[in-house]
Amino acid sequence: MALYQEQSLKMYNSMTGEKEVFKPINEGTVGMYVCGPTVYSNVHLGNCRTFISFDLVFRYLKHLGYKVRYVRNITDAGHLENDADSGEDRIAKKARLEQIEPMEVVQRYTIDFHNILQKFNNLPPSIEPTATGHILEQIEIIKTIIEKGFAYEVNGSVYFDVKKFNETNHYGKLSGRDIDNMIANTRELAAQSDKKNPQDFALWKKAEPQHIMRWPSPWSDGFPGWHLECTVMSTKYLGEEFDIHGGGMDLKFPHHECEIAQGEAATGKNPVHYWLHANMLTLNGKKMAKSTGNNILPEEIFSGNNDVLDKPFSPNVTRFFMLQANYRSILDFSDEALKASEKGFNRLMDAYHAIDELPVSDKSSVDIKSWKQSCYDAMNDDFNSPILIAKLFDAVKMINNIKEEAATITSEDKDELQKTMSAFMFDVLGLLDKVSENNDTSDKLSSTIELLIKLRAEARNNKDFALSDQIRDQLQEMGIQLKDGKEGTTFTIKPA
Amino acid sequence: MALYQEQSLKMYNSMTGEKEVFKPINEGTVGMYVCGPTVYSNVHLGNCRTFISFDLVFRYLKHLGYKVRYVRNITDAGHLENDADSGEDRIAKKARLEQIEPMEVVQRYTIDFHNILQKFNNLPPSIEPTATGHILEQIEIIKTIIEKGFAYEVNGSVYFDVKKFNETNHYGKLSGRDIDNMIANTRELAAQSDKKNPQDFALWKKAEPQHIMRWPSPWSDGFPGWHLECTVMSTKYLGEEFDIHGGGMDLKFPHHECEIAQGEAATGKNPVHYWLHANMLTLNGKKMAKSTGNNILPEEIFSGNNDVLDKPFSPNVTRFFMLQANYRSILDFSDEALKASEKGFNRLMDAYHAIDELPVSDKSSVDIKSWKQSCYDAMNDDFNSPILIAKLFDAVKMINNIKEEAATITSEDKDELQKTMSAFMFDVLGLLDKVSENNDTSDKLSSTIELLIKLRAEARNNKDFALSDQIRDQLQEMGIQLKDGKEGTTFTIKPA
Repeated sequence: MALYQEQSLKMYNSMTGEKEVFKPINEGTVGMYVCGPTVYSNVHLGNCRTFISFDLVFRYLKHLGYKVRYVRNITDAGHLENDADSGEDRIAKKARLEQIEPMEVVQRYTIDFHNILQKFNNLPPSIEPTATGHILEQIEIIKTIIEKGFAYEVNGSVYFDVKKFNETNHYGKLSGRDIDNMIANTRELAAQSDKKNPQDFALWKKAEPQHIMRWPSPWSDGFPGWHLECTVMSTKYLGEEFDIHGGGMDLKFPHHECEIAQGEAATGKNPVHYWLHANMLTLNGKKMAKSTGNNILPEEIFSGNNDVLDKPFSPNVTRFFMLQANYRSILDFSDEALKASEKGFNRLMDAYHAIDELPVSDKSSVDIKSWKQSCYDAMNDDFNSPILIAKLFDAVKMINNIKEEAATITSEDKDELQKTMSAFMFDVLGLLDKVSENNDTSDKLSSTIELLIKLRAEARNNKDFALSDQIRDQLQEMGIQLKDGKEGTTFTIKPA
Repeated sequence: MALYQEQSLKMYNSMTGEKEVFKPINEGTVGMYVCGPTVYSNVHLGNCRTFISFDLVFRYLKHLGYKVRYVRNITDAGHLENDADSGEDRIAKKARLEQIEPMEVVQRYTIDFHNILQKFNNLPPSIEPTATGHILEQIEIIKTIIEKGFAYEVNGSVYFDVKKFNETNHYGKLSGRDIDNMIANTRELAAQSDKKNPQDFALWKKAEPQHIMRWPSPWSDGFPGWHLECTVMSTKYLGEEFDIHGGGMDLKFPHHECEIAQGEAATGKNPVHYWLHANMLTLNGKKMAKSTGNNILPEEIFSGNNDVLDKPFSPNVTRFFMLQANYRSILDFSDEALKASEKGFNRLMDAYHAIDELPVSDKSSVDIKSWKQSCYDAMNDDFNSPILIAKLFDAVKMINNIKEEAATITSEDKDELQKTMSAFMFDVLGLLDKVSENNDTSDKLSSTIELLIKLRAEARNNKDFALSDQIRDQLQEMGIQLKDGKEGTTFTIKPA
């Protein structure tokens, strides 16, 4: 029996505003689409949080035994500066400023994006399609939407007719907006647009003469509207109806609303069964923004090269920090919070590594079975990683109690504890084992230093201070600092 | 003045069979296209050699001060099993066998490809376009070729008319084949084909009903022929005529021959000014092939998990080994050859690191200026990396002579020596500094072990055998083995 048959997973569906029991369209398989980045600059930390959130979803679904096809796109054309239908293409603008070809911009920032997500130990999606890779499919779906009467051509551009669509469908149902109110509240600027109504959005835009990224179509040499690519790529690889669509909260309107309208107009079907939205990240209580300087890049966190944090933090600790909040809550990034996470992370890893050495008894005074289910309950409750982490810290307490002989565990339960912690820490939360992060060499370095500390202590006991000083001084020369304290001698390693 | 104005670079042009002085179309800029992988399996070592060869070309052109746009494609559709116009699509076949969507196959092996090339320290190309990302462009160029009279449609497929093309152009000029001979020597199987002549090749293939990867076109729902993508992507990003086209020797015919025909037919221009072809890699003197087991994957070299080599070799040493042969020579991969390369690599790095400590004099007895030019001469002679490496070993000799006071160097020359070695070793050959590869932790581990070896030697001198044995035994427990020899004590580290 697959795990998903034993566990009842609920997820918060933004469409209904409720936590719903998850039932995939085809038993045992899940189709999930997540809006990926527009690759015109280094990926920002808020986006990383979104992708880590959906990595958690992907990992938990896989852990439950689902066969998951996870599609996340790369927007490499069509995303205009103001998110709507005017302004310059973001990638083309960057290319113009740097005097390179737009696809060179795409290449540079796609590589950056992949590198950063790999450092955060995100699993790659199953398919990573690009907007420019699906121009033909976008042209085909526009033809269909025009045929169905939900789009019109003006001067070489094609617009989606929101008012017409709303006569038979409900435009605004995801974001809770009312189209009549929207129309009433909009003051149309006469010369602004070819659109019948300001709510209409572009499916195809005729390219201005200076626009570099352009393709032939039945209407003009131009480019597809930004919202269309996600409709095309999600349905091409997951079907006209699929299970889960995720994205950042800021994409709910208009992007996802437009996706629903396009899908329903083209196929008459409800494209997405569960809409999941990840919340934003603030920095020291304020919105992150390059313009105000209240901003930090992932690489700046890892290197410590920034004005916000006292010290560097590893991708692993940063990921752990992010997972200590629920994906639907706003999370504030600060030095203090990261330091606390790092401490917690180390406590968790140390406890995990202590399991091996725990003494076993004939009887368990701890209830591993119900603790294990409580871990699943946390994740089943809309991927509640902070609660899961709290449960893992309950296990830390258990481990310490057993170590101090304030509790007992059977050999069987000990195995189960270890396996369950490993599954949730590494497979589901996607943390990296401290040892494997620092790798084997680092382990051996610690062991050799510990041996030197021991030899030094013996030398001091023998009053051989020449030798004990020699050991301390030579380690210092290597950048390894010994510190004698009440609990014995500890060491710190200075990077070269 | 840019370096390229001082150095006269020659490259072997496969089209003329001669080393020609390189003159780019636009002064100071280079457009280079290299045929990338078909992503249906793990990248094999022979392909890696090809991409390392062109990485060397890319790096040297950049080093000379050219602004290089390097385009390398990903073939994610249209490459049929037998390299010609029949058989199953390689990616679709893999997808069928693994019961997944073809684009999942593409994603998996694109990631593998990028990871392996990154380990080899290859620079990413400026643009990495995909075949499926350029279907529309391929349809457009087919229309043009049909209009110009060099292609014909039969039953929904479109074929290039080689015989017709050869009336005005020369099909076979790159590979030195004669079309009339080719036709005379071919026994056409009657029912085999819609083609007018067996030499004709597909520009568009009508998809069989079971073919998954298909797109609408004016001729049929189908897919583009394999040769076409390279014509489209090279000219889209580099222009109808561009400077350099590279690829493996095995692609000369028919792939590159077809590219020339397509380009000339569509534009009337000679698409490529310099054709560069990289030679193959053999393993223990024989062709590598999965079927015979005479095969090794890059990851198997790095991990040591293989039946061919005695020990693991780093990507860095493997790269160095490959660069010790000219890209146009067949190179044989063997345990012995790699061990020799590793030794040479370490000698080179040690010498480089010794430069800092070299004593300086008022006069140089060594001629750094002419040595430096000899390094450029090597690379200017068709990227002759083995000669360049020989010149670097001349510098090793110089360094050792200066260290032993058998030669002298001025402070100025010493700087120049260091800068030149660094430029050729790291920027041009793309080697990684040994220290940064093994990283700082590994360095510190070596230092702490050396300290322990010293303490053990002191203990033995003091006849404190209990202590000396303790040090040896505890290191052994950590997987660090001491070995006493004539030259003193050495150690080996066993991976965990």
